[in-house]
Amino acid sequence: MSKTVGVMLSGCGVFDGSEIQEAVFTLLYLDQAGAKAMCAAPDLPQMHVFNHLKGEIEEGGARNVLVEAARICRGNIRSAKTVKATELDALIFPGGFGAAKNLSDFAVKGTDCSVHPEVRRLIEEMIAAKKPVGFICIAPAVAAKVIGDVRLTIGRDADTAGALETMGARHIECSVDQIAVDQDKKVVSAPAYMYGDASPAAVASGIEKLVEKVLELA
Amino acid sequence: MSKTVGVMLSGCGVFDGSEIQEAVFTLLYLDQAGAKAMCAAPDLPQMHVFNHLKGEIEEGGARNVLVEAARICRGNIRSAKTVKATELDALIFPGGFGAAKNLSDFAVKGTDCSVHPEVRRLIEEMIAAKKPVGFICIAPAVAAKVIGDVRLTIGRDADTAGALETMGARHIECSVDQIAVDQDKKVVSAPAYMYGDASPAAVASGIEKLVEKVLELA
Repeated sequence: MSKTVGVMLSGCGVFDGSEIQEAVFTLLYLDQAGAKAMCAAPDLPQMHVFNHLKGEIEEGGARNVLVEAARICRGNIRSAKTVKATELDALIFPGGFGAAKNLSDFAVKGTDCSVHPEVRRLIEEMIAAKKPVGFICIAPAVAAKVIGDVRLTIGRDADTAGALETMGARHIECSVDQIAVDQDKKVVSAPAYMYGDASPAAVASGIEKLVEKVLELA
Repeated sequence: MSKTVGVMLSGCGVFDGSEIQEAVFTLLYLDQAGAKAMCAAPDLPQMHVFNHLKGEIEEGGARNVLVEAARICRGNIRSAKTVKATELDALIFPGGFGAAKNLSDFAVKGTDCSVHPEVRRLIEEMIAAKKPVGFICIAPAVAAKVIGDVRLTIGRDADTAGALETMGARHIECSVDQIAVDQDKKVVSAPAYMYGDASPAAVASGIEKLVEKVLELA
């Protein structure tokens, strides 16, 4: 029977939501491996709306995380609060600033951040059930805050790596096409567009490995 | 030297802009083949904003096609009016209703539609220069309107196929993972999410073939 894998989105666009390419590569490799993706996102206002053309915050902009995330998966999405770990074999968090602005407030508060309660609850359920969870790009910041003692990568950005370690994680340096694996916690991470100049193919390669490892652990 | 391929976007989201997955698969396979993508979109208001969660038009919503398209390519995009065929080796149109609502008004006017002048001009330049152009999903409607006598596929939707033929095209039935090729005009098309229930992997497979053929003809 095919495995069901939650994909936790955080909006639609790298600077205020999910990194779109990372999310789509996740959906592609899950499908190619015969797994069923169940997309979810918290139903809450975005921290802000970012103009991706001009590279600046759109003053007065208001969008909803769940509504925008629905764009990536053609409307086939559920509110995070309805999703339970018992329904899932694994869970994957694509990156994008949405993970640090909407799923948590790491972008603003750094190591003092808090994680959205529905997101925290689902991660804790997965870890308690010994089901694998994958974190891409900046999403490992969420993992560090919730899980604490866990091996993670965000590539080789020293400041962010230091923040993860302050929150209790052990940082593993990885190139864009590598993954870090915490076998004990069943947590897999990939730097993806933490390498901002990376090419889509390089990012896809790392995500393909992450998906493969997550499914192997499931 | 690597080939430069224009990717004409029409917003960000299947129901009011570019089909996100089709656009990302296009970028992935271009990059994997060593080609350089140059994303572009017309700078104009979207026909409307669609709530992809509820499946309905968002009354009073206003977004800009170029600004929203920039989300897919991390801000690395140009206004269509600045792009000339002399800069490109090939051009690809991902699908999504944006092709029928923003790049043209086919969604509203059917065979009496008109195509945005910047988009029409670029297609005409490419065809005149005998450079290949790829059309995905519903984007072949734009091709039929501009080029007229050309072999195209939109899968096997009889109504849309009939509309294409009324505009002068010859329709070729294709499954989701097949492509139609007009060798003479150097026009390649793939049905993709014209099969609305298709899986990401099946859609990606057709787009991979389209990208490969477009590059072969370039």
